[in-house]
Amino acid sequence: MSATVTISNRQFGRVPLPAEFLARISARFGNGFTQSRPILEQHGSNESHFGQSVPDAVVFAQSTADVVALVNLCAEYGVPITPYGAGTSMEGNALAINGGISLDMSQMDKVIAVNAEDFDCVVQPGVRREELNVHLRDQGLFFPIDPGANATIGGMASTRASGTNAVRYGTMKDAVLSLEIVTPQGKVIRTARRARKSAADYDLTRLYVGSEGTLGIITEVTLRLHPVPETISAAVCSFDTLGGAVDTVVQSIQCAVPLARVEILDKKQMVAVNRWSKLDYPEAPTLFFEFHGSAANVAEQVETVKTLAEANGGSAFSWSNLPEERTKLWRARHEAYYAAVNMRAGAIGWATDVCVPISRLAECIAETHVDLDASSVPATILGHVGDGNFHVIFSIDPDAPDEMAEVEAINARLVERALAMDGTCTGEHGIGIGKQARLVAELGDAVEQMRMIKRALDPQNILNPGKIFAMI
Amino acid sequence: MSATVTISNRQFGRVPLPAEFLARISARFGNGFTQSRPILEQHGSNESHFGQSVPDAVVFAQSTADVVALVNLCAEYGVPITPYGAGTSMEGNALAINGGISLDMSQMDKVIAVNAEDFDCVVQPGVRREELNVHLRDQGLFFPIDPGANATIGGMASTRASGTNAVRYGTMKDAVLSLEIVTPQGKVIRTARRARKSAADYDLTRLYVGSEGTLGIITEVTLRLHPVPETISAAVCSFDTLGGAVDTVVQSIQCAVPLARVEILDKKQMVAVNRWSKLDYPEAPTLFFEFHGSAANVAEQVETVKTLAEANGGSAFSWSNLPEERTKLWRARHEAYYAAVNMRAGAIGWATDVCVPISRLAECIAETHVDLDASSVPATILGHVGDGNFHVIFSIDPDAPDEMAEVEAINARLVERALAMDGTCTGEHGIGIGKQARLVAELGDAVEQMRMIKRALDPQNILNPGKIFAMI
Repeated sequence: MSATVTISNRQFGRVPLPAEFLARISARFGNGFTQSRPILEQHGSNESHFGQSVPDAVVFAQSTADVVALVNLCAEYGVPITPYGAGTSMEGNALAINGGISLDMSQMDKVIAVNAEDFDCVVQPGVRREELNVHLRDQGLFFPIDPGANATIGGMASTRASGTNAVRYGTMKDAVLSLEIVTPQGKVIRTARRARKSAADYDLTRLYVGSEGTLGIITEVTLRLHPVPETISAAVCSFDTLGGAVDTVVQSIQCAVPLARVEILDKKQMVAVNRWSKLDYPEAPTLFFEFHGSAANVAEQVETVKTLAEANGGSAFSWSNLPEERTKLWRARHEAYYAAVNMRAGAIGWATDVCVPISRLAECIAETHVDLDASSVPATILGHVGDGNFHVIFSIDPDAPDEMAEVEAINARLVERALAMDGTCTGEHGIGIGKQARLVAELGDAVEQMRMIKRALDPQNILNPGKIFAMI
Repeated sequence: MSATVTISNRQFGRVPLPAEFLARISARFGNGFTQSRPILEQHGSNESHFGQSVPDAVVFAQSTADVVALVNLCAEYGVPITPYGAGTSMEGNALAINGGISLDMSQMDKVIAVNAEDFDCVVQPGVRREELNVHLRDQGLFFPIDPGANATIGGMASTRASGTNAVRYGTMKDAVLSLEIVTPQGKVIRTARRARKSAADYDLTRLYVGSEGTLGIITEVTLRLHPVPETISAAVCSFDTLGGAVDTVVQSIQCAVPLARVEILDKKQMVAVNRWSKLDYPEAPTLFFEFHGSAANVAEQVETVKTLAEANGGSAFSWSNLPEERTKLWRARHEAYYAAVNMRAGAIGWATDVCVPISRLAECIAETHVDLDASSVPATILGHVGDGNFHVIFSIDPDAPDEMAEVEAINARLVERALAMDGTCTGEHGIGIGKQARLVAELGDAVEQMRMIKRALDPQNILNPGKIFAMI
């Protein structure tokens, strides 16, 4: 028996696709439509702990017109559509748990325009963030949002992704200027113009960002860009205690140091990183920093942070100033999930995610460590400490059925702890399948407002059904 | 005959309040309920060009419970409620054009909590931004959003206000962490926790911010704060040409200078400012700057900007580094509207507002100047140049009926011009009464999504009816 969370028993209303629908969709999409088993299985899998949940078919969209045609067909036959980007989401957000069509957006991968003077660009949703940054490099611009995985821009918008740079540059809520959306009625709308701000209410852009494909399908994204800083310096600093590391960050922010990245890794995570990435950092609570600015400004930021770190039990800074050194450092950070999961051969990963007011972060992590120390399931903590956002990564034995239940219980306590501190059940992974009950615990009656919006915009419930608040 | 825009002919469904409703509301609210004519007239007036539109009654809320009681009573009798803060909005946003209750929130003016370590605070909606900053001063924190007027925080959230600091610190969309809302069904919800970010979709906070009181009534606001910068320097620089001023700003942003404020004022606006504020600035296109940071960082920013200004035909910088000098400078900027309107004795003001991609700003202002030069109505241009956002302030003779029509036509062309440049019909004033047709021109079918949301959340249409998209 697999210990992954089975979701088949949560499925409802799954019926075979009508033959007439299949004939029409096949005629419309040709090779862009498939029911090939390996492709279905690939689109039914994900990087997290949810079991496979295969769609009935996969459609590869090439254009907005393709999406409109698909939505119109699916609306006619009541077939669910679940948009799919790179499949890197952590809460089962892109799994077609009610069957129907997995709409693969990855072939809509053109950069449509870069408006360098306006610091923005227009892209198709299948563009991946790393490729976008390669495209922008020559123009002295970059797109800062970095959730770790090389996700698609459409997927990142749909889950309101953030990651390592959010402390300085914000999240997808801040990065998206405008969206082209195909509505469940098959209409193509644009949520905003390319101006940097607008009071032309309501804020549809922010409503679709983070709605996990349940309200409309993103077919184009206008993104805010930033000038590449004159100087980028990265450093690693280890601490006697995790509290000392957190205090250093809080005090840096109080001193208005515009940290570009500041990541916390606990001792176990550092052991895993060293082993996975073949590094030899001290195996102690650690901060990974990145500073952006002019040479003089970076020097000044570093001076302030070094002084604070020293006062909080921090080591000397280990510097990575050359681009290839920085790449190595951040690759190690980005692979931290795989590093943690693979501490155990054949293990399944489960990454959970909470965010609390920063004044409560040290306490929240400390209490969580007590829980983890008492557990038989290996786990590490790492996170975006400047936002108060951290992850616990569990490394679960798939042949030990009790472990999944144990992790469920630890996760439930973690979320309760975060909520008791006026935090949120998810800083950046979204609700998806896994956190629906937690959403209600967090926002109560406000969830009913979300349901009213969903029913109003998608009365047939054809877009990514079963997600966010559908099961509770 | 008055030349103000008459709105009585736009009203619909205005019926006298039922006697039973009046008896019950009077019993519930006592002195907090009034039909006194001067108070009705005060709540039926505004700072802009819209004619008076008196409500049937005014209720002064003291608490969330008051708002719930009022909403329940109004829902039972189908009576409209229009929330009212400081009455400083520019598009008639808070005018009760369908009669009913003007809900005055100004007495809910407590600062509930300041969480200094988390850089946030919790306030009632009637707190005004200047009083909030006085309250925060001792703690080394400030609330940056500054629309000029000493507006209420609730009103600023409702219109998605921004203003002079937005180029560095964002708008109310960025400043609001969470809202307490009374729904049209009389439920009290909280849109988010106090964490700095969240992926607990949908983003209700951003949906209510900018919804002009049409979806729910704001009864509490959690705001993001910032540390007071170590050094603040302000300067004025005049230019040979307006294009030179705009280019200086665009190039500064390209050089990643984190300008805290950068305001453009055209020659006529400078004449008005000098006369109104008794100053003697050169009467030429001018930038007002403010720089925030450490002493060294501010010096570096200034050096970059001075070099760019010089290359673009800018004068030497005139500095205001003492707090009282800065206050004088920004008071002059904030009174620019009154300065412009009062160039003509007894005139009525009309401030319109567009925002375009910054690459098009110089062109947009230049073309608008051609229109203004051909008009008999005096007008000035000033704006938040770092965002691409500018205002035209008309000074209209109320006894010359043709002037209002002439301004309507210039405003229509201005919006068309901004939209043709992929800009928005309003950067910060909102839609209110005045820009409903422009909203449709800008967003087309997306407006239907807004209507669907309004119908879903407020099916009785009791909250601020007649606004945003109701007339078109």
